Amino acid sequence: MTAVVDTSRSPRARLRPVPIRSVRLQDGFWEPRRQLNRTVSLREQHRMLEETGRFRNLRVAAGLERGANSGKIFNDSDVHKWMEAACWQLATDEDPLLVERVDAIVELLEQVQEPDGYLFSPFVRGLRGRRWSDGEAHELYCAGHLFQAAVAHHRVLGSERALDIARRFADLVCATFGEGRGKLDRPDGHPEVEMALVELYRETGEARYLDQAEFQIQARGYKRLGEPYAGWISADYNQDHRPVHERDRPEGHAVRDLYLMSGVADRLLEAADPELEAGALRIWESMARGQVYVTGGVGVRDVSEAFGRDYELPNETAYAETCAAVALVMWNWRLLQLTGDARYADLIETGLYNGVLSGVSLDGRAYFYANPLACDGGLKRRPWYLVACCPPNIARALASLPGYLFGSGDGVWIHQYASGEARVGEVELAVSTAYPWEGEVQVEVRSGGRFPLRLRVPGWAEGARLSVNGADASVPVEPGSYAVVERDWRAGDLVQLSLPMRVRRLASHPGLLENASRVALVRGPLVYCVEQADVGGADPRFIVLPDGAPVEPVRSDLLGGLTVLEADARLAVPDAGWDGRLYREAGAVEPEGHQPLRLTAIPYFGWANRDAGRMQVWLRSSSG
Amino acid sequence: MTAVVDTSRSPRARLRPVPIRSVRLQDGFWEPRRQLNRTVSLREQHRMLEETGRFRNLRVAAGLERGANSGKIFNDSDVHKWMEAACWQLATDEDPLLVERVDAIVELLEQVQEPDGYLFSPFVRGLRGRRWSDGEAHELYCAGHLFQAAVAHHRVLGSERALDIARRFADLVCATFGEGRGKLDRPDGHPEVEMALVELYRETGEARYLDQAEFQIQARGYKRLGEPYAGWISADYNQDHRPVHERDRPEGHAVRDLYLMSGVADRLLEAADPELEAGALRIWESMARGQVYVTGGVGVRDVSEAFGRDYELPNETAYAETCAAVALVMWNWRLLQLTGDARYADLIETGLYNGVLSGVSLDGRAYFYANPLACDGGLKRRPWYLVACCPPNIARALASLPGYLFGSGDGVWIHQYASGEARVGEVELAVSTAYPWEGEVQVEVRSGGRFPLRLRVPGWAEGARLSVNGADASVPVEPGSYAVVERDWRAGDLVQLSLPMRVRRLASHPGLLENASRVALVRGPLVYCVEQADVGGADPRFIVLPDGAPVEPVRSDLLGGLTVLEADARLAVPDAGWDGRLYREAGAVEPEGHQPLRLTAIPYFGWANRDAGRMQVWLRSSSG
Repeated sequence: MTAVVDTSRSPRARLRPVPIRSVRLQDGFWEPRRQLNRTVSLREQHRMLEETGRFRNLRVAAGLERGANSGKIFNDSDVHKWMEAACWQLATDEDPLLVERVDAIVELLEQVQEPDGYLFSPFVRGLRGRRWSDGEAHELYCAGHLFQAAVAHHRVLGSERALDIARRFADLVCATFGEGRGKLDRPDGHPEVEMALVELYRETGEARYLDQAEFQIQARGYKRLGEPYAGWISADYNQDHRPVHERDRPEGHAVRDLYLMSGVADRLLEAADPELEAGALRIWESMARGQVYVTGGVGVRDVSEAFGRDYELPNETAYAETCAAVALVMWNWRLLQLTGDARYADLIETGLYNGVLSGVSLDGRAYFYANPLACDGGLKRRPWYLVACCPPNIARALASLPGYLFGSGDGVWIHQYASGEARVGEVELAVSTAYPWEGEVQVEVRSGGRFPLRLRVPGWAEGARLSVNGADASVPVEPGSYAVVERDWRAGDLVQLSLPMRVRRLASHPGLLENASRVALVRGPLVYCVEQADVGGADPRFIVLPDGAPVEPVRSDLLGGLTVLEADARLAVPDAGWDGRLYREAGAVEPEGHQPLRLTAIPYFGWANRDAGRMQVWLRSSSG
Repeated sequence: MTAVVDTSRSPRARLRPVPIRSVRLQDGFWEPRRQLNRTVSLREQHRMLEETGRFRNLRVAAGLERGANSGKIFNDSDVHKWMEAACWQLATDEDPLLVERVDAIVELLEQVQEPDGYLFSPFVRGLRGRRWSDGEAHELYCAGHLFQAAVAHHRVLGSERALDIARRFADLVCATFGEGRGKLDRPDGHPEVEMALVELYRETGEARYLDQAEFQIQARGYKRLGEPYAGWISADYNQDHRPVHERDRPEGHAVRDLYLMSGVADRLLEAADPELEAGALRIWESMARGQVYVTGGVGVRDVSEAFGRDYELPNETAYAETCAAVALVMWNWRLLQLTGDARYADLIETGLYNGVLSGVSLDGRAYFYANPLACDGGLKRRPWYLVACCPPNIARALASLPGYLFGSGDGVWIHQYASGEARVGEVELAVSTAYPWEGEVQVEVRSGGRFPLRLRVPGWAEGARLSVNGADASVPVEPGSYAVVERDWRAGDLVQLSLPMRVRRLASHPGLLENASRVALVRGPLVYCVEQADVGGADPRFIVLPDGAPVEPVRSDLLGGLTVLEADARLAVPDAGWDGRLYREAGAVEPEGHQPLRLTAIPYFGWANRDAGRMQVWLRSSSG
């Protein structure tokens, strides 16, 4: 089945997945983006993989071309991720060119793979001796991406070829790493292989892949506790400082930690481990309480790409890597399968509409690596990066998006709202909505029978209402939970969920001192920001939004069609009385004067799609 | 002469230095710290140099011991900096043990030095081929520190031995680097040698050393423009992205940039270069306007140890390396010699009393590398570091401190106030004050004659008064300038400067959004902070200091004797209504309740000298 994560036989999954192929998106928000992903992003990325030598590295490794391996040591992973993305896209779309290119990659990988199963282009031939010698070489990280690509390939195209490659390599990994005599007892420096091994287990039924995932998880923190790392890298950077079950917060390189957490959740879906589960949930709670941007961005520190302390959420220097937002969605998706708890689906929603989507330009041709919440105009999306993890990551997130909307198991679950048709288990549904621009969601049940229909009421949707065939559903409609309607359904029954789309001003916890006396404007799942282009060139840092000022949604043609927010605000004259000083006595001079300003805010995902200019999410409010 | 920077013959110096030996500190603030530096810090550091293999590296390089070079590649520099510190300390103190240890180092360095003058322990013998092959190897950085140590040794002890070592090495550097055929035309990755070469020129009269400094400065930015660096290191990291005269802001690794700026200032003291000078002053202005903490700390970013954007001054993650504060003092000292402008002396004062002094514990045994302005209790000073630049840097700053107080040239300049006696040019003076605790400064002129006496009126000292023999001096006493009294002095004349020591609440420029609605308490040159230990265990992040609340200085025995600040404040109950959420609707619930709290603030330099606890410099104020 074409499930993104196939928990259909996982003993501990509360939810069963709905195959991508069972969902036909017909909405005006996501599906155009998925098609852009297919027709522009995946094609341009393929060109970059060739131009930047990623394919050449594989051809050299296969002996098809002469030369040396070049670029970053983990460059193979970009090819694997691109292949995975293309496969998910092919679950819903006919695209012979993509099929041809995927086939060519599989053929190339077959030629690169060594007789014992090893497949990592930097360490073939003369450099064979370097195999497994360096935990930071990303061998297992690349292996994990290869496994995920092979699983997607098998699920979508039904071919065994890529899966066979993955099995051969995974068998070598199992023979190489573990507790036994002569085996390497250290985990990889960059988690990723854990979740990939669990998926490979699900796809093949080979228990040793699950055992190897278990080893990779359990080996963390035991083997190198307290051992110093090179330079500025400390043991918590790659989660090697403490075993997961002893931890109580997200730590280190964010993508590494979130991939690890995804693997942990996958592992927990297969078998109980109360200690490990308690650790994973502590880490999630701690992250949600003090380390997530309002956009769903995570990993606050640049350079080290790491999580910070509680409430360390700087706006302008926010790292919030696109890959970390994608990884956050992956992790929360697995926790949602495990628990059916709406808070995970809420965070997926926040991430998808904001922190993930800001990672790609509206034309599908350029990407952000970092996604800050304030910018002086110096950032611009780029078509590619020397470290190019983000472009194919966002491509696979968009390609697989239909797989994240519904759930099966104990009835029908609707996690995210977008127009389209779906088959969930035995049930046919049609969803009709202008979400995220409007809050009305209509679900037509097209199959009869008794089952609970579960609709997520987002945590922000205070005052949501639910009706069935025009009459109040008379069930609890609590924000942050699934409203459940269980009845004898008849084909043609209409369920209407009304989510109030009032503009909300969010404040930050007082521990987040940088955001004191500031608000973020949010409507539905969308976080808004102010760009210099929309406020007559004013510096958004000095805009003051008075507490009582009405903020109105206005449908606009801006940037291809957006609902913008408008309000009467004020602009402070920032330098009055400062004379170039950085500090002065408080109250020594009159506060800076203000002039009136008509404020227009756009959805955060749309920022930086015009000429360079300042941007700000958190606006000054008039309350102290 | 025992000048820290000998500008006594520099053509463009407005000020002439006063030798350390001409100043006899007798105050209760600095001199006890200098003695602790001599009796504890320098001795403990010497022990660490031995225990951590720094001396062993030199013995191995000299062939006196077998083994391999170990530790960081720049570890020689710690030995050189320790030697420099010890020499400055010996300018005022008898200390046979220090003399013996300095002699031993000089003898060892003689044995390490190769016949052609090269002296860098990692690249001797078998590794000779690596000489000068890597700009990041810190060879010239270490050379610079060696030259500075040798200059201090010559000035203080009068011996030629270390100076001869330096000359031989400097001659090799001159023969190796430059524009000529067969020479290396790239500068070193870590600036430092520039200022050292200028000082070596001053000490020896060899013009080629000045020329080499000029080359090292001018080579910056030309040779590797646009060239990418390894990993996260970009060309601006080590100031190789643009020539100094084209720059307009501080950039990259802060210590590197400030050492470079010190070298540029030294170079400008020797010969005019209007373009270079304009660039240097632009960089200074930009830094002062947007990149200096209120403590005088600089270099805001951790990991990259770099300057940030304008107004990027995060409190809790502040890097503000101790070495950068020392380097800031060094740079501003040179600019002060060049211009006589009080703003440089003001910044030296801020740095010394706050950002530099916080780098060492009150017992002289432990050091901070980073000096943040807020802390969750997780930071502790350590006796040593793997990268140990800070301990000997603070030791040389304290040892040489008497050299930073006075100036000669066009009269007598008093830059910093501390009790003691000095001979400035032909003039004998005695200063008597309880500064920084009290603002009364009495200067007794002990020599007759006509000359201008210049006393710095700190930029913060609004309302300062000046009298001569009890009568108003009738001269301008403007904050941020030198008050000048020129008269026919008679021995015994008494000049009294009264600096108002009212507690000031500082606000930050509105561009520094993190500090909106917050104040820092400052009294005289001292920045204050609140530690959990002094507020009954309350979290200082949630203390609110009402705008009108009086803040009183109180003399206390705390931490060996400090003037603390006390006020009636409030403590917000931070989590009321948040239920573990990070964001919520503004105004959705009542603001958190407050309870009364008696606030005690201590000088920032004294923080983290007790059990671990939270610390905060910028406090919430009641104004929005």
